[in-house]
Amino acid sequence: MITNVENEFLAFVKKVMAYKEAVSLMHWDLRTGAPRKGAEQRAETIGMLSSEIFAMCTSEEMAAYIGKLSDEQAKNKLSERTNRLVEVCKKEYDLNKKIPADEFREYVSIQSHAETVWEEAREKSDFSMFLPYLEKLVDYNKRFINYWGYKEHKYNTLLDHHEPGMTVKTLDEVFGQLRQSIVPLVKEVAQSQSKPETDFLYETFPKEKQKEFTIQILNQMGYDFEAGRLDDTVHPFATGINSGDYRITTRYDENDFRMAVFGTIHEGGHAIYEQNISKELENTPLHQGTSTGIHESQSLFYENFVSRHKGFWQHNFALLNQYAPDQFDGITLDEFYHAINESKPSMIRIEADELTYPLHIMIRYELEKALFNDEIEVKDLPQLWNEKYEEYLGITPKNDAEGVLQDVHWAGGSFGYFPSYALGYMYAAQLKQSMLQSIPEFDQLVEAGNLTPIREWLTVNVHQFGSLKEPLEIIQAATGEGLNVQYLIDYLTEKYREIYQLN
Amino acid sequence: MITNVENEFLAFVKKVMAYKEAVSLMHWDLRTGAPRKGAEQRAETIGMLSSEIFAMCTSEEMAAYIGKLSDEQAKNKLSERTNRLVEVCKKEYDLNKKIPADEFREYVSIQSHAETVWEEAREKSDFSMFLPYLEKLVDYNKRFINYWGYKEHKYNTLLDHHEPGMTVKTLDEVFGQLRQSIVPLVKEVAQSQSKPETDFLYETFPKEKQKEFTIQILNQMGYDFEAGRLDDTVHPFATGINSGDYRITTRYDENDFRMAVFGTIHEGGHAIYEQNISKELENTPLHQGTSTGIHESQSLFYENFVSRHKGFWQHNFALLNQYAPDQFDGITLDEFYHAINESKPSMIRIEADELTYPLHIMIRYELEKALFNDEIEVKDLPQLWNEKYEEYLGITPKNDAEGVLQDVHWAGGSFGYFPSYALGYMYAAQLKQSMLQSIPEFDQLVEAGNLTPIREWLTVNVHQFGSLKEPLEIIQAATGEGLNVQYLIDYLTEKYREIYQLN
Repeated sequence: MITNVENEFLAFVKKVMAYKEAVSLMHWDLRTGAPRKGAEQRAETIGMLSSEIFAMCTSEEMAAYIGKLSDEQAKNKLSERTNRLVEVCKKEYDLNKKIPADEFREYVSIQSHAETVWEEAREKSDFSMFLPYLEKLVDYNKRFINYWGYKEHKYNTLLDHHEPGMTVKTLDEVFGQLRQSIVPLVKEVAQSQSKPETDFLYETFPKEKQKEFTIQILNQMGYDFEAGRLDDTVHPFATGINSGDYRITTRYDENDFRMAVFGTIHEGGHAIYEQNISKELENTPLHQGTSTGIHESQSLFYENFVSRHKGFWQHNFALLNQYAPDQFDGITLDEFYHAINESKPSMIRIEADELTYPLHIMIRYELEKALFNDEIEVKDLPQLWNEKYEEYLGITPKNDAEGVLQDVHWAGGSFGYFPSYALGYMYAAQLKQSMLQSIPEFDQLVEAGNLTPIREWLTVNVHQFGSLKEPLEIIQAATGEGLNVQYLIDYLTEKYREIYQLN
Repeated sequence: MITNVENEFLAFVKKVMAYKEAVSLMHWDLRTGAPRKGAEQRAETIGMLSSEIFAMCTSEEMAAYIGKLSDEQAKNKLSERTNRLVEVCKKEYDLNKKIPADEFREYVSIQSHAETVWEEAREKSDFSMFLPYLEKLVDYNKRFINYWGYKEHKYNTLLDHHEPGMTVKTLDEVFGQLRQSIVPLVKEVAQSQSKPETDFLYETFPKEKQKEFTIQILNQMGYDFEAGRLDDTVHPFATGINSGDYRITTRYDENDFRMAVFGTIHEGGHAIYEQNISKELENTPLHQGTSTGIHESQSLFYENFVSRHKGFWQHNFALLNQYAPDQFDGITLDEFYHAINESKPSMIRIEADELTYPLHIMIRYELEKALFNDEIEVKDLPQLWNEKYEEYLGITPKNDAEGVLQDVHWAGGSFGYFPSYALGYMYAAQLKQSMLQSIPEFDQLVEAGNLTPIREWLTVNVHQFGSLKEPLEIIQAATGEGLNVQYLIDYLTEKYREIYQLN
């Protein structure tokens, strides 16, 4: 009896996944070479099929499955997989159904206008243009939180959408510790007299050669080209099309190879995560990364803990030289390693280095939290933003374009998303520490270019579960403790004191 | 009142088109580089979304629209476009609904097995393996014809599916004339002592260089790269994704540049057809070529009447030489022109030259017609096939693989399709003749590489209408007469008597 319902439910979910495959492919295509004249109709088609997905996920049929499969008696008979799947579908159903349909429609309409206005406002560096839209977006989100419900802080509900289980309490703790250690370190680094030489990074490195090199690196990492492909784009991303197809895109700057090399490694980390999810989760939304934070932990693991590691370049510097025969003449490995790890306070998050990056996130977190706690108003954001940049990074944006208007997230109504970026970084450092217990020869493996045991450890401890487990369950099981920011602090402190010769 | 129904109907059709866009893109992707490990799931996804399209096109909702919009009173109030759209939707609806669902399911299942068996049978050159499947496919089609209804010949119903309005009566006439003229001409050519030198065609011509050359040619033809793109594949095709996106694929043989050059021009002709359909037909199935025959007339117009024209190479032979600097040393334009127009009887349709090609089609037509007239049995096909090859082309296949098993069409249940290939050729010759009335300087334009007036004439007379008009309406309006095979006969006779020095 329950088996029949379960099978029907699984078939229904599989159908939803088929639609999602179509939409993912259409997005990928649009961003990797779909012809300009078909783009407008494509956008409409994506909208139409996305509406169909929304309709299915909030349908009476879905409600009936959730109802039948989530009573206690049913739960006992179902597999862990199906129980978790019901839970995930229920969460999405509730999220969408608790908001009155007309309010949601108004909100979507404001959202789409807001992005256009934000673009113009950023271009003109004029926050006042964007202000009324941002006020409405925040206001709607506050109302939605009331519909959805919340525990302790309203902002917790938003955090939970992106990083299930994450709370203000936890973030206050970890960001507090980070602030105490990293803010002074960033200042010391900025004042250090020992600056790396970086001119050689900006010499011309032909795109095709960069591409050949990054393909070699992806192969080392264990990216499976039979279950993916690498294409060019403007704003790089990785995307799952189906469970045997996880694609990477990248962008090439012929005067700065770091964009493509580190960018591809970053996206490769995302891709390897999903390429190694258990096949048993196929055809369900469990066959994807469990949260934006855990996803980011995998991309940052490869980007920072592998490819910005000196040992990685002990193995690959000679290879890089083959693809750019003259660029690094007379440059030692140490000089190269210091150059690619240069750190200095800067205005723009997406251009920030490894050390200063978490401070960019902390600033956004503190502002969002205060907004949803009704401690500050939207109109105060530009000034508060600038004050925090001065406080944490020692620099002040010269205008709103390089300040409060720099990111698209708020224009899209995305609040509670930014912390995931920093969480991913903390998770990655914590996973690295735990990995060292099982693989004490980590450094030697990286130096030998043998990344397979590293990938396998991540698969066993993170990848395979897809969304079967929640982020903090994964971290607890993999590292034996809850979120602990100390590993990231130690990593950054040790590395940057060494590079900048701070005793 | 009727306007509301019309608008709802148009919105419904637009939704169907959105699904079709998704399916087309998924097909294109699968054939141009989708990763191997995602292919199986992709096939399932395509199947699932195709079923949704089928369900919409045969739904009660569709039936209701057709009912309301096709009574005489409604028709008078509707635009030509909507009336034609209703007609096209009704035709598809009837086609699918008149067959009992269980019979159709059985048929689809046999079809999918038949293709696999055919592949193996062809590999082993063993018709007896394929025989029981082919018998069933023919048998089901005969039954379906009874459900669908027919006039005069059962085979007319099948012809009409691919080439609306086409009949056995017309085809008997045109193929009869073709046989009388072309069969003796092919024999004379085969016996001619004057053979073109062709060795130089098979020299190594790097793929990238071939590609650069074909892009130049596509630009000359007026293919719009902002509304399309060119990719590599194994079995080349052109495909419409949406009304601003019509893509070409091609295959490169580094030892025979003709495959990519003439293949791309052929697919380019298909693409240019759909790129120039009136924007007013967007978001409906009228925004596609009206039949396989008319589609083929456009690809063959460019392939044969433009790119196998001597004037075309007067303009482009020097350009070709730039991409293959040594290959054509000491070869005159005339020698080149004769070589690329070499004609000789051969076994395989898809490798046949311009002159012998129609005979390959005629043989298949005669066999299909006899099958559906109950004059022959499926088991007799191999022998009859071989006899006809001997009769028309003077050669006999040495086995079934290069005989009756060579084409996939029958394994897919496609009967009545082959004649389209020959019809396209006849249409193209007839359109060319008519074009000469408006553009007497055709030869000079081709020699000058100015193909724009030619493309414009085809747009005015063929492209713009999409499926708004039926094939024979288009031919009648463009040429002032019904199908007339004499133009093709004259073209082939004159051209090949000249090349092979037959007085």
